[in-house]
Amino acid sequence: MRVTIPIYDGLAALDAAGPYEVLRNAPGWEVGFVGDEPGEVRAEGGLGLLADRALEEVAETDVLLVPGGLGCRPLMRDERWLGWLRAVDATTRWTTSVCTGSLLLGAAGLLDGRRATTNWLELEQLAELGADPVGGRFVEDGRLLTAAGVTAGIDMAIHLVAAELGPEVAQAIQLGIEYDPDPPFDSGSPEKAPPEIVALVRQVAAGGE
Amino acid sequence: MRVTIPIYDGLAALDAAGPYEVLRNAPGWEVGFVGDEPGEVRAEGGLGLLADRALEEVAETDVLLVPGGLGCRPLMRDERWLGWLRAVDATTRWTTSVCTGSLLLGAAGLLDGRRATTNWLELEQLAELGADPVGGRFVEDGRLLTAAGVTAGIDMAIHLVAAELGPEVAQAIQLGIEYDPDPPFDSGSPEKAPPEIVALVRQVAAGGE
Repeated sequence: MRVTIPIYDGLAALDAAGPYEVLRNAPGWEVGFVGDEPGEVRAEGGLGLLADRALEEVAETDVLLVPGGLGCRPLMRDERWLGWLRAVDATTRWTTSVCTGSLLLGAAGLLDGRRATTNWLELEQLAELGADPVGGRFVEDGRLLTAAGVTAGIDMAIHLVAAELGPEVAQAIQLGIEYDPDPPFDSGSPEKAPPEIVALVRQVAAGGE
Repeated sequence: MRVTIPIYDGLAALDAAGPYEVLRNAPGWEVGFVGDEPGEVRAEGGLGLLADRALEEVAETDVLLVPGGLGCRPLMRDERWLGWLRAVDATTRWTTSVCTGSLLLGAAGLLDGRRATTNWLELEQLAELGADPVGGRFVEDGRLLTAAGVTAGIDMAIHLVAAELGPEVAQAIQLGIEYDPDPPFDSGSPEKAPPEIVALVRQVAAGGE
C-alpha cells in the first residue's frame, strides 16, 4: 500500500507524525510526503519537515492522509492544492484526514453530504463546507475516514491498519509504539475539560493563535 | 524555556513530534532541533526532519529531550554525542527522554542509580546501563524525567508542562491537541496485549525487523 501525506507550511506536525508512525510499521506499506515542491516545509512552531516530491509527481495513491494545522487556511483557496486533492482522491482506496485536514477536503468539494469530523472547534465550518459533521475520534463513511483533532490521527491509523490487515497486525503495532495512553488529566475533549479551560482554548483559538 | 531535541538518522519520528506538539504550545517556550550538523535527518521509515543547528551550537538548555529509535544504537558508542549529552545535562532544569532515548542517557553515564524507564522491551538493558528500571508511562527522579515507548512521550510532556506552568495550562494544551485517546484495541502494553501479540512483537524486535 502506498500512503501519501501532503505537507505544507503551518501544518501541525503531530497530525502527520502520529499516523505516520502507525502506518509505516504496517508490513509492506510505504509512506511518502509531498508538498508544493521537494524540500523544506515548516510545521506550526518551526519544526522542519521534508517533502520528497512535488504534489504533481504523485498522481495516484492507495491512502491519502491530509493533516491539519493553521497553514491549511490559505490552501482552501489554492486551486493547485484543491485540484490535486480531487484528482488523487479519485484514485484512492482510502481518503483520510486529521484535524482541520478535513476542511481542505471539504474545500475541494470532497465532503458533500458525507459524514465527517474535524477538530472540535471547527465542526460548524465543516458543515458550511457541505459535510454532515459527526463527533467521535474518527468517522468512517465508505472510503472516507476523518479524524478529530491532532492526536485522534493515531487512533484512526490503528483502525485503518485493522481494516486492511486485521486486528492482530493493528494490535502488534499498537504494542510496538506502546500506545497505552494515560494522560495526567482528563481534559482532552470539550465534554470532559473544565468549562473554564474550554473557554480559554476557544479564546486563544479565536485570537488566531 | 528553551527546549532542545537532538535528532539523528533512525530516530522514531513520533518520539520527538509527540512531545514537540505539547511543549511548543506552552506559552513562552521555544523548541529547537539539533543534530550532527544542520540539515536533513531521516527518521525510521524515511520521514525527513531538519536539524536547525549542530550539537555544539547549543551549549545549554532548560529542557533536554532525547528521542529514541533504532538509530540511537550507534550513538551509544559515539563520544561526540555522549560528551554533548553530559555537558548539556549539566545545564538543564529537566533532562528527559522518550522510549530508547534513555539508553543514550544511560550510555552517557547519566542514569547511574537513577529511577528511569524506556520501551518495555529494553528495561533489562536499562539496568545494564546502571539505572534502576521502573515501569509506568513516565518516571520522575529529581530533574530526570524518562518516558516509556514512543507515545508515552505525549503523556510525559503534559506532565512536564503541568509541573512548570500548572494544571490549567497543561489541560488547555491537552484539549488543544484533543488528546482524549480512544484506541480501537487495548493492546498498548505487554500486560494488556494478548500473549501471542506480545510474542510476535518480541520476535520482530529481536530480528531487528
